[in-house]
This record gives sequence, C-alpha cells and structure tokens, in this order.
Amino acid sequence: MIDENVLQPLHTEPAYKLAARTMRERILNGDIKVGEVLPSELALADLLQVNRSTVREAIRLLEENGIVSRKPGGKKLFVSIPKSTDLSGPITGAMILQKVTLNELFRTMHVLEPAIARDAALYASPEQIAALEANLAQTEAQAGDDAMLSELDIAFHNLMSEACNNRAILLSRQPISELFYPAFDAVMKRLNAGERMLAAHRHIVDAIRARDPKTAEDWMRRHIEDFRRGYELANLDIDLPIARLPRSGTED
Amino acid sequence: MIDENVLQPLHTEPAYKLAARTMRERILNGDIKVGEVLPSELALADLLQVNRSTVREAIRLLEENGIVSRKPGGKKLFVSIPKSTDLSGPITGAMILQKVTLNELFRTMHVLEPAIARDAALYASPEQIAALEANLAQTEAQAGDDAMLSELDIAFHNLMSEACNNRAILLSRQPISELFYPAFDAVMKRLNAGERMLAAHRHIVDAIRARDPKTAEDWMRRHIEDFRRGYELANLDIDLPIARLPRSGTED
Repeated sequence: MIDENVLQPLHTEPAYKLAARTMRERILNGDIKVGEVLPSELALADLLQVNRSTVREAIRLLEENGIVSRKPGGKKLFVSIPKSTDLSGPITGAMILQKVTLNELFRTMHVLEPAIARDAALYASPEQIAALEANLAQTEAQAGDDAMLSELDIAFHNLMSEACNNRAILLSRQPISELFYPAFDAVMKRLNAGERMLAAHRHIVDAIRARDPKTAEDWMRRHIEDFRRGYELANLDIDLPIARLPRSGTED
Repeated sequence: MIDENVLQPLHTEPAYKLAARTMRERILNGDIKVGEVLPSELALADLLQVNRSTVREAIRLLEENGIVSRKPGGKKLFVSIPKSTDLSGPITGAMILQKVTLNELFRTMHVLEPAIARDAALYASPEQIAALEANLAQTEAQAGDDAMLSELDIAFHNLMSEACNNRAILLSRQPISELFYPAFDAVMKRLNAGERMLAAHRHIVDAIRARDPKTAEDWMRRHIEDFRRGYELANLDIDLPIARLPRSGTED
C-alpha cells in the first residue's frame, strides 16, 4: 500500500479566486495598466477558459479591492488605483470584531499623528498648507456648533495625513482615524473642548507654515494627549472595546 | 417643467453589495455572533428575499474580508474574526499601484517599529518574550544562511509587533512590513549585514526582558536606520517605487 502521505486531500482554489488572483497579478506587475479598459466578461472568460459567471465573481472581488472600478454612471470597467478610503472597511471591521480598545487606538494615534505633523512641516506643499489654513478659518468661524466642529476636526487630521506626503502612512492610518476621531469627538463635545482644539490646530498650522517640525510634532502630541484626558475627565473607560459606530454604510 | 435637480439618475447599490453590507452590519453589531454557523444560502435567500446567487456573491465578499470563513476541508460557513495577515493583500496592492516608494515605507517603519519595541518592553507577556528569545537563538545558529536569516528577521519583527499588544498597530503595520522587510533584506544579504542584525536583535530582546522601554526603542531605531544605510551603501535609490515582489500568492 502506498504511504498515506503520497496522496492527501486536495485543497483546490475555487475558480473565481484563481481568476481574481491571476488578473490581480497581471495588474500589479503592470501587464494590464492603470486606466486601461478591461476586456468584456465574455472575452475574459474566453481568455481564461472559465465560465462567464466565474469571471463576474472574480471582477467583483477586484472591484471590492478598488483595483477595478466603473466611472460614475458608466458600465465599462477600468483598472484603477485604490484610495485609502476605499480600503478601510475590512480593517475597521476586523478591529471591531477583535474588540480592539479605545486605548489601543489612542496609543497608535499617539505614535502616528505627531510623526505626521513633523513630516507635514518638512514636506507639505503650499496647496496643502492653504487647505489646512482654510480648515482652520472654518473652525474659527464655527466655534459653538459641535457637530460641525467634529467634522472639521476629522477633516483637519485627514488633511494633515495628506500633507505629510507619505502614502504608506496614509493607508495604514485611515482605518484607525475612522474609529478614533468619532469616538473621542463625542466626548470632546460634552466637555466643551472646542477652544483647546482650536488652539492646538492653530499652533500646528503655524509650525507647519514656519517649517518647524519639532514644534508641529510637540503640539500634535499634546493635542492627542488631550483626547485621552478628555476621555478620562468624562469618567469613561478607555480600555473598553470600540463599538460599532452608528454611521451605517461609511465603512463599505 | 420640474427643476432638473428634483429627479436625478439613481445610483442603486447592486443587490449582492446590499446583501453583503446588511450581513456585515449584523455581524459587526453582534446580532450574528462570532463562531455562529451561517444559515444556508437558501435560508439566507429566503430571509433577505433575494436570489440564491446574490447570497452566494455576498458571502464571497464577506469571505474575502475574513469575517466569514470555512474550517479547513469543511463546507459550513462560520462567522470569524479576521486576522491582520488576511487583510493585507488589498493594501499592499494599493501601495504597489500608487507607486509608493521604499522611502515612504522606511519613514513609516522608522516611526512604528521603535514605538512597538518600547511598548513590547512595557507589555510583552512571558510567552512572547520566550518566543523572541527562541527566534534569537535560531538566528544565532543560522549565521551565514542568508535566506534563513531573512525569514528569521521577518519573523522577529512580526513577533515584536505581537509583543507590543496593540492590535490596531498590528493591523496597520502588517501590509507595510510585508513590503518593507523583503525589499531591504535583499540588500542586507549582499552586504553581509547578518552580524549587525543579530547584535541589534540581541540588544532589543535584552531590553524587553529588562523591561527597559527606552533602550528597546533606541536600539530598534538604530536597527531600522541600518536598513536605510544598507540600501544607500548598495547604491540603490530609496526613492524608487516598490515593485511587485516575486512571491506570488503571498498577498492573496
């Protein structure tokens, strides 16, 4: 009798996954270029020698990952460059199911945001600085409107993460920021911390304009530490798991 | 005539996406619990009042995101907690298509890895320290075997990221590390930098064992800076985009 190790159960990859993986590799290695129109389902089925339904399922996976997309209202599929906001849903979902705590988010942002501020002072373009200044002006004008302040705060930190000109940081930070700022802004609102927030943002933008990485980094660190302090002042437990946020659809 | 803004083209969500989103929300808000067996396709189709093929496509999206999975060899679908390694593929793909540079990866790791070392010194469990020590012993035994050293180096940094006990950092770091270490280890090999690597790892593990966050952080920073120096010594351009790595399948 043959050794039982000679023949073992096959773990075959489903055809749609193999088709998705094959197309993905051709796109990532540049054989199929960004911006190119994908062949029709029928043509792809013929090329890959699989069913048309297999091709459709493979394309849906690629669409989900943002490397294939349609122009708004259009039917044609293009090879596209995924954006950080397209890709955060599965990660925020994983953090919620893993019961990641607010403290873990805080510790991560306490590392990332000051480094981002430092690099923004070094690398921000004049347009990026102008966008930060516009956000600051809006924030000054909105003092008192909490919902608006929270939106402007999230926008401020997103502008900062763009201004550091590091897309690896941008991609890795996105899902964390989507959970961090809404959770902490809810507390800030109760504590009327708008003034402190505005002051910190102002110091950070001033430092970036002055190309002063150290001051930008220090002020951002203080600012992030304020979030934690606000949370503690509100007598909330930072070691509780983050909950599903009541903003349906934003992560899909 | 009515104002043209009153009726605009509908952007309807395809049924399979709506079904996936609906199931995902029920899972994330805890209505469907982790570990539960998902109802059959037929039962789900009946509950959601959609076609069975729509349900199948929705489930494939959930499987892709790791929140639904099968036991090896099994057919039944369970609600599951996605792991960081399940979710890195779309992000590494985005970084490749965005033509992220090695320098961006370096700058990100230069921020993350020292912070991870600091937190590992504070929070690593005895088991996690033992795992780091075992990796170190293996690295000492393998001096000279470059391929093996590279694998052990990647494993070392992955163990570190677990030892910091922050799953938000673990998730956000994973795709970057998958691109960073292979690219830089290729250079280290040429430069015979095994000795320097081993010394750095040894100092880091010693500092973690001694619960000395500052020393762990400082040594990790030096160690990461060595990667950059090695790259420059090899006369390679750190501002070039990362390329698709010749390790097919690892990111899927």
